[in-house]
Formats: sequence, C-alpha cells, structure tokens
Amino acid sequence: MSEDKRKAALDYHEFPKPGKLSVEITKPTATSRDLALAYSPGVAEPCREIDKNPEDAYRYTNKGNLVAVISDGSAILGLGNLGPLASKPVMEGKGVLFKRFAGIDVFDIEVKSESPQAFIDTVARIADTFGGINLEDIKAPECFEIERELISKCDIPVFHDDQHGTAIVTAAGMINALELQDKRIEDAKIVCLGAGAAAVACMKLLISCGAQSQNLYMLDRKGVIHTGRDDLNQYKAMFAIETDKRTLADACDGADVFVGLSGPDLLTADMLKSMAPNPVVFACSNPDPEIKPELALETRDDLILATGRSDYPNQVNNVLGFPFIFRGALDVRASVINEEMKVAAVHALRELAKEPVPEDVIQAYDGERFEFGKNYIIPKPMDKRLLTNVCAAVARAAVDSGVARLPYPAHYPLESIDDIK
Amino acid sequence: MSEDKRKAALDYHEFPKPGKLSVEITKPTATSRDLALAYSPGVAEPCREIDKNPEDAYRYTNKGNLVAVISDGSAILGLGNLGPLASKPVMEGKGVLFKRFAGIDVFDIEVKSESPQAFIDTVARIADTFGGINLEDIKAPECFEIERELISKCDIPVFHDDQHGTAIVTAAGMINALELQDKRIEDAKIVCLGAGAAAVACMKLLISCGAQSQNLYMLDRKGVIHTGRDDLNQYKAMFAIETDKRTLADACDGADVFVGLSGPDLLTADMLKSMAPNPVVFACSNPDPEIKPELALETRDDLILATGRSDYPNQVNNVLGFPFIFRGALDVRASVINEEMKVAAVHALRELAKEPVPEDVIQAYDGERFEFGKNYIIPKPMDKRLLTNVCAAVARAAVDSGVARLPYPAHYPLESIDDIK
Repeated sequence: MSEDKRKAALDYHEFPKPGKLSVEITKPTATSRDLALAYSPGVAEPCREIDKNPEDAYRYTNKGNLVAVISDGSAILGLGNLGPLASKPVMEGKGVLFKRFAGIDVFDIEVKSESPQAFIDTVARIADTFGGINLEDIKAPECFEIERELISKCDIPVFHDDQHGTAIVTAAGMINALELQDKRIEDAKIVCLGAGAAAVACMKLLISCGAQSQNLYMLDRKGVIHTGRDDLNQYKAMFAIETDKRTLADACDGADVFVGLSGPDLLTADMLKSMAPNPVVFACSNPDPEIKPELALETRDDLILATGRSDYPNQVNNVLGFPFIFRGALDVRASVINEEMKVAAVHALRELAKEPVPEDVIQAYDGERFEFGKNYIIPKPMDKRLLTNVCAAVARAAVDSGVARLPYPAHYPLESIDDIK
Repeated sequence: MSEDKRKAALDYHEFPKPGKLSVEITKPTATSRDLALAYSPGVAEPCREIDKNPEDAYRYTNKGNLVAVISDGSAILGLGNLGPLASKPVMEGKGVLFKRFAGIDVFDIEVKSESPQAFIDTVARIADTFGGINLEDIKAPECFEIERELISKCDIPVFHDDQHGTAIVTAAGMINALELQDKRIEDAKIVCLGAGAAAVACMKLLISCGAQSQNLYMLDRKGVIHTGRDDLNQYKAMFAIETDKRTLADACDGADVFVGLSGPDLLTADMLKSMAPNPVVFACSNPDPEIKPELALETRDDLILATGRSDYPNQVNNVLGFPFIFRGALDVRASVINEEMKVAAVHALRELAKEPVPEDVIQAYDGERFEFGKNYIIPKPMDKRLLTNVCAAVARAAVDSGVARLPYPAHYPLESIDDIK
C-alpha cells in the first residue's frame, strides 16, 4: 500500500474522533420525566415483562436488531494472528458494513481466550445480549468446533462469516460463471487451493448446490488431500478422495474450476493453460490473488475470472451476503442460519446478477455499465436491491424450513434501510 | 406504579423501535473508496499500528470512549434476581445515562454465568474491547470478589456502580448534611441499615472521609453486626464492633445519622424520635424508603432527610456520579478508579451543592429554586456543571495519584458534552 493510502487509512480511523462507531440514544431524554421512563423507576416494567416472557426482550430492548461481531483476532484477513486488541479496527469495520447495508446495530467484541473452549464459554455466556452472533477472523480448525458448539448452545443465529459468507458469495458467482461457460456444476471438476475455514465452507456449500465430491480436489500446503494421507484433521478428511493426483499442477490438468483461498501467485500460467476449455478461476487471496489478473486474462481468453479485489471485475465480496442474511434471519427471529437459508441467499444473488442494473448502481461505479456476462457474474456491493432480494429470500427460507419464530414479515420485501422495523 | 405509568414505561421502550440504544457510524461511508478505508484493505493499517503499539487502540478505535455496562441480573434494583436477559432494559438504560450526561458510548452486556469465577473469566476475556467496565446489579457478597478480581486482571477501570457510585453520592450529601447540622463526620454516630454491596461501600467511603469505625453500627437482617457474631462473611466482619446494641432500635438511640440501604418502612417514628438532636436520615430504599418522608418530617422538624426518589428533596441519585467519574477516568486514561478519585468526586459534588444554582437548572425543575440548605444538600441531575466540576476533579486526582497514562487534559474543564474529544 502506498504511503498516501496508508496515511488516508490511518487518518480515517483517527479523525475527528477515534474509531468508526458510536452508541446513540433512540428515545427522548430531555426531561426528568423522560429519564424516569428510561431508567428508574420506569425501567422496572419491561424487566418484569421479560421475566414473565423472555421473548419480550425483542419487544422492549434492542436485542432483535443487535448482532455481536466477535473475534479472537487469530486469523485477521491478510495479517494473520495479531490477537484481539489489534483486530478491533476490523470488527468495528464489520459493524460499519452491517449498519450501512442492512441497518443492523453491532457491538464488536474482542475476546482474549486461552483455548477454543474458553472462547466458546465466553461467547455463550454473553449471548443473551444479542439477536445474532457473527464470528469473525478465527483461525481454522478451531473455528469449526467453536461455531458448532456455539450453534448448539445458543438460541440465536451464530454464523462464521469467513466460512459461510465467503461460501455463499463464491457459490453464487461460481454457478453463474459455469452457466455462462455452458457447464453444469454437477459435472465440473473443481480444484480448491487452500483448506482453511473459507475453503472448507465453500466446498461444502458447492456440494449442497450440486457439485460432486469425487470431482473435487482440495489442496493444503502439502498438496492434494487424498485418502492415502494420514496427516489430515477431521475437516480436511471429509474432502479426501481416491486419486493419483498429488500436486497443484496435477489437479489443474483438465479442471473446469479453480478456487483459490490461499496466497499470492500460486497458480502459474502453465497450470492455467492445462485447465479444460472455458475455465472458471476464482483467485480470492487478498490483496494479492493466486494469479495476477493480467497474466490470467492474457493466458486464456476463454476464461471467467473473479478475485477478492474491487479494482477488477467480479469481486467476491462478503458484504454481498452477511448484512442481508442477518437482516432476513433477525426479521423472522430465526434460531439458526441453516443450509436452506444459505442456499436461498446463493440463488438470490445469482438471480440478481441476471437482472438489468439500475441507473443508481451505474452512477455509484462512475458510470460503468454492467450486464450479466463474463465481467459481471455477481451483483455490486452498492446495489440497493441486495437488501430487497437477499433478505426476502433468507427470511422465506427460514420460515419454510421451520426455524423462524415469526411469520414472513408483512413489511417485506424491504425497499431501503428506512423500511427496517 | 399506576397502570398509566406502567403503560407509559412499556410504550417508551417499545415504540417506535424496541429498546433505547442504537449503534451509528461516525465516518463517511457514501462511496466504495470510503468503504475501502473503513474495511478492507484500509483497515489493515490501524491493525498493524495497534499490533506494534497497543496504546494505539485508543487512537484508531472507539475503545477510549467505550464503557461496558455488565450485569448478571442477580440484583436488579427493586426486583432482585431476574437473571441476565430481564436485566437488559436496565443496562440499556444505564447506557442512556452515560451517553446523555457524559457522551460515553456503552455496550450493555448481559452475562449468564454459573459462578462468580465464570463471570470474572468472561468479563476479563472481553475487556480489551473497552476503555472501562461498569459492573451493575450484581448481588453481594459475590460482587466484592468479582470486582476485586477484575480490577487485578484488567488494565482499564473496573467500577461497581451499585457500590461506589452510591457511596460517592451518599458521602457527598452526608457530609454536607452534617455540616448543615453543625456536626463533624469524625464524631458522628452512624447507623447503617443494610449490609449489601451499597452499604459496605458507603461505610468504607465514609471512613475514608473521616468517619470512625467504632461509631458505626451496621445491621443486616439479623440485627447489629458485632464481634460476638459467628455468622458474618468477611465483608460484614470488617464492620463488627464491640457493643451491647442488638436491634435497630438499640442502634438508633442517640445516633446522629441513619443510612438506609435495605427496604421499605423499617425505620419507625419512635426510632427516629430516639436519635440525637439534628439528625440526618438517608432513607435510600427505592421506590419505597425506610421511612415515609411525610412521617419522618412530621416526627422531627430538626431533621435533614434524603431519599432515592426524585419527587422529594435531596435525591441520592447515582447519575450524579458515574457518568462524570468515568469521563474523567477515560480522558486521562486512568488504569483504575482509585480511592483518591472517589474522594475527589465526593468533594466536587459537595462544593457544587454550595454554589448558586444557575437559571437553566431552575428551568429544568419547573422554576423551583434551590439554595444550599436542608432541602438542597446535593446537586440536581440536570445541572450541567456536574460535567465541568466532577470530571475535572476525578481527572486531576487520577493524574496526581499516578494512575493516569495521559496528562490532565488541555481541553478541561469541559463546558458541555460538545467539548468532549
């Protein structure tokens, strides 16, 4: 990053006041009478009601619009394990995105924990505070156990965005790209470089969407994950297949799809050349993709390429997912974010990419025109229809799959964040 | 509470949106460029800086203006142990007061814990998130161990307001009342009815302010705490004295001061009659005091009476303390709120009550005039000079006692919350 950009980023965080979030009062507090309602003695009344009926917490407190963004800072995007305190700018930033795109209030919580169990216990004990929990930047494999245990302990949605948010946006773009390349996901040979949280979740969701596990080559630092290896944790072992392929080059040979969730410049031009006709490459390592976009596009003109970067077409950006997924889940008071809701989000994103792009989105991207095709396989973050379409699809799937405690909202589909109740 | 008041309290909490707090974005987020500063890739820069120098968390995040209001709901004012979820309206309400009076952002955190140690571990693990921790509505004696352990584990101020906030405001009013009654705290015979968190803290602080422990009779449900009892926990045992007095009536006989932190109607007219000339009665049980104010005032015309209620003179209200104590502590980055800072707050409150009351305060109380005397021994909550005077006194005491990591602020004394940096 240039010194100018570095300074701009630091100044943005520091001035005029440190940080990016504040907590504001939403009720009148001008007079003593107001304060007697907000605090003693008036506050006793909602406490009594919630004591009688715990669901009334959603009626008298902010719980129903409040998501915790919680991290131990063990896998900060692009920075690794810096611990909880240094992760705070990221977690506040996530709060900014939740609010900006879906009107959701976020408390960022940074946890210093000595073990996964300590992290689980801590989050479970404070869960009553919130309507949902977004786990963030927690390293694999600990993140899998943490998420699984918290889902079982909590009666509110717990969602590790690095896993499922990434998976949902990747799957939406991937299936659209395959369609444009005239391929079926059921037949596609898929190489996944990386075996961390995002990779495992992406491949699981692609399987939920039709991919065949025997067509799927996952690679960790030691190469292809195959049944002959005895060094695999239980999460990697799920993806072990019988194969003679050992290296990335072996795996890429004849593959239809490459998904990179690993590190910079690991996919070579020769590997890309060896892929099947009309390949799809998602080089999502950020900020430096698994192959330089320029190199990829000059190597293969039959390619569809997506990256994690905003300065190239087809950005795989989690902000297309998590704000709207949580909005939909909160608005029907879903107890979990289940597979049906994730798949519904995938299809809502897919469908939206096929719709004509309205003028305000074009304006937000300096007049650039977008049309469903090789350079536009997933919606743009500034597209306000994400709120309308994704929230509705997720809420509907929650209701239909029986995990919602409220009916499909009468005020849906949302037209703008002003419509949020 | 009347049905009308009950409905007003519930409506206040429910409409137009549930709860009393929201989280808002303080930085620009209109464009993709803004978002690239708020989140990826810009956010990596402050993370790196904080990793190099942890103090930079105060520079690039909201930590320095962020207080956690944390409860297990085990001793909710006037309601008892309703647990964490039902305490949420109170904790949000406390957040309202912190923001309204001192511009401090609050995350309310409700903790479901199976033991004091679990509570301690939980709070210690999330402490990096905050610039200070306000413990609230935690029952005695667990609250003493919890506070002591958290103070030793955390490098930020940890303050149990039910103890120390109550103690500070009580001590300020008490010493002023004694002065008006022409008595010295060093000589006063003091009866404290109640031996919970607030009572223990009040008596400790009165001792710090000059009260003599041999003049102090504390009573729990079983009567006077004396050296002959073998049923005392360590916190009550500190107040055991050698005495023949056993009942509340025994203790009140000849006493100068009665402090009630117990329950309604326990102080009888006969007991009040038996007190020394020119007595001081703080009947702080809320909403129903230890003696009905009308009864007290018709029983003794040489009395100074304070209660916890806003509809009588001399309201002992914690809001006179905690917002400004935390503001002062945060603004010099104090590592603790120590005894020097508490005593400084007591004296700042005392002095302010002796100043002429400005017109805006009179307006806020429907034109009522206040002048230092029997019916005005402590400032009113709507007095904006609390921010000016108490914050300055606390910050100065922190710097002078060596617990501040920043110098006394150049922008102090604060004139209004608009001056907060």
